[in-house]
Amino acid sequence: MIKVFGHFSPDTDSTGSPLIWAWYLSEIQNQPAQAVLLGECNTEAQFALRHWEFEQPEILTDLPAGTPVVIVDTNNPAELPEGINDADILAIIDHHKLVGGLETRGPIDITIRPLACTATIMYQLIGADMARAPRGIKGMMLSCILSDTLEFRSPTTTDTDREIAQALADDLGVDIADLAAQMFAAKSDVSAFSAAELLKMDAKKYAVGDKTFRISVLETTSPDQILSRKAELVAAMPGVAAEDGADEVMLFVIDILKEEATLLLPTPLLRAVAEKSFNVSVDGDQVVLPGVMSRKKQIIPVLSL
Amino acid sequence: MIKVFGHFSPDTDSTGSPLIWAWYLSEIQNQPAQAVLLGECNTEAQFALRHWEFEQPEILTDLPAGTPVVIVDTNNPAELPEGINDADILAIIDHHKLVGGLETRGPIDITIRPLACTATIMYQLIGADMARAPRGIKGMMLSCILSDTLEFRSPTTTDTDREIAQALADDLGVDIADLAAQMFAAKSDVSAFSAAELLKMDAKKYAVGDKTFRISVLETTSPDQILSRKAELVAAMPGVAAEDGADEVMLFVIDILKEEATLLLPTPLLRAVAEKSFNVSVDGDQVVLPGVMSRKKQIIPVLSL
Repeated sequence: MIKVFGHFSPDTDSTGSPLIWAWYLSEIQNQPAQAVLLGECNTEAQFALRHWEFEQPEILTDLPAGTPVVIVDTNNPAELPEGINDADILAIIDHHKLVGGLETRGPIDITIRPLACTATIMYQLIGADMARAPRGIKGMMLSCILSDTLEFRSPTTTDTDREIAQALADDLGVDIADLAAQMFAAKSDVSAFSAAELLKMDAKKYAVGDKTFRISVLETTSPDQILSRKAELVAAMPGVAAEDGADEVMLFVIDILKEEATLLLPTPLLRAVAEKSFNVSVDGDQVVLPGVMSRKKQIIPVLSL
Repeated sequence: MIKVFGHFSPDTDSTGSPLIWAWYLSEIQNQPAQAVLLGECNTEAQFALRHWEFEQPEILTDLPAGTPVVIVDTNNPAELPEGINDADILAIIDHHKLVGGLETRGPIDITIRPLACTATIMYQLIGADMARAPRGIKGMMLSCILSDTLEFRSPTTTDTDREIAQALADDLGVDIADLAAQMFAAKSDVSAFSAAELLKMDAKKYAVGDKTFRISVLETTSPDQILSRKAELVAAMPGVAAEDGADEVMLFVIDILKEEATLLLPTPLLRAVAEKSFNVSVDGDQVVLPGVMSRKKQIIPVLSL
């Protein structure tokens, strides 16, 4: 049985895309496949699973050498189980930059495209067979695209993502604004999480000069729910950074509706990075960055020390 | 201007595929592109260029940082110019295993498929626009596929390669056996090359245990023309190995028509590797390996010490 999975700390795309591709492999390609998760998925992904009537996929606890796998939504070995290069990687479908490090035993199917969402690429790869997709698969595709594009607000959004989402919504008779509002409300309900869990929810490690940062992003329609816990979040940062071998945690609280990010700046190092990277002058322990919504397009590329 | 190129020591696929993709980018996608070579192409590729009436592409001598490039027929930085990670890599189209090492600045178009030939993948990617391809582009595609599959004899050949080659031949009114015979005759005419040049013509470095081998392959319909120069080839091996930081050169002379390889074994280390890897008992300074035609499928995977 082929295991299909995305990255650690699964968001909606890393939860939904494995389900989509496992359906395609099993039902259209006659290759039995199972979607699995690398950890508990976030609250938005949980909403999407319930909304489109999927069981929550099993969490992968063990990856024996030689297991046939399809990797989706990442090509970064740091976001995958330790033994990934000993698995039998059959295919990779992703929309992130090539980071190097994954190796395959033989030539395999790799499709990476500069689109906002893995599910958009899958829609293209599945092609005419989309007509055979059940409602839940099409719905999950739509949810993945709305999630990764923040309902088309993110600068990662391409015309292709927008057109495919609209075609899916028309086909399903779904109101995009209404579905997105429900998804973002689910994502914004983070009251159940500890400060450390919030910092780890959607984080990528990135080196700037001789320092390493854990760059955490929380996309929300209720930024106050997070920012009101600032003291608690700041207190949790050193522990979370150390756990990951990073020097500092940078937390960006992204207001989906106002289309801006609030970056917490509890240390002189963070203030220095913020001033240099975003060309702002900082006065206090946080800064608002208007228009900043995408780690990939607007944060990682400008970070400097 | 986008530069499109394959690997060092260009064979027919690494010469033809850049021409095909540069046509597609320039004429169909309205993105001006130029095919270039990373060195002199082999005699078969030269024949294909003449046969389908192309000028020989320029040889790339300099790759300034930031140059927009499309890489075809490899994803291995060792087979590409030193500054490749400082270029602006727009896309990769390949049919080899992912080796790791290439990095891209942002998400880009990457298509790797387990087919015998890059041109086969391009035929699929170009899709309906193939109807707009001129005769030379279609002919070069056919030549690339016949070259990489050794006229469908290589075990790397897939049904997809075979079907697309047949469709191209039917469209062009070309007899496959006749075209392949001319191509292989051109490839087999290696009288102009020195022994060292022959050893370097189609070589990949590969580590086995704590030893590194330069695995050279010469595909030919006239193996005697090469094997009659055995003493000269053996004498050139230590110099070529040293130049590449390898311990030894393994030379496989592949008889395309008899579908067998002759491996030269001038040293005890080479004899030991041959016996262990191919499960043969060696008596003398060469061994014939029936059915062995593909470095990728039949040599690299079995090499052991």
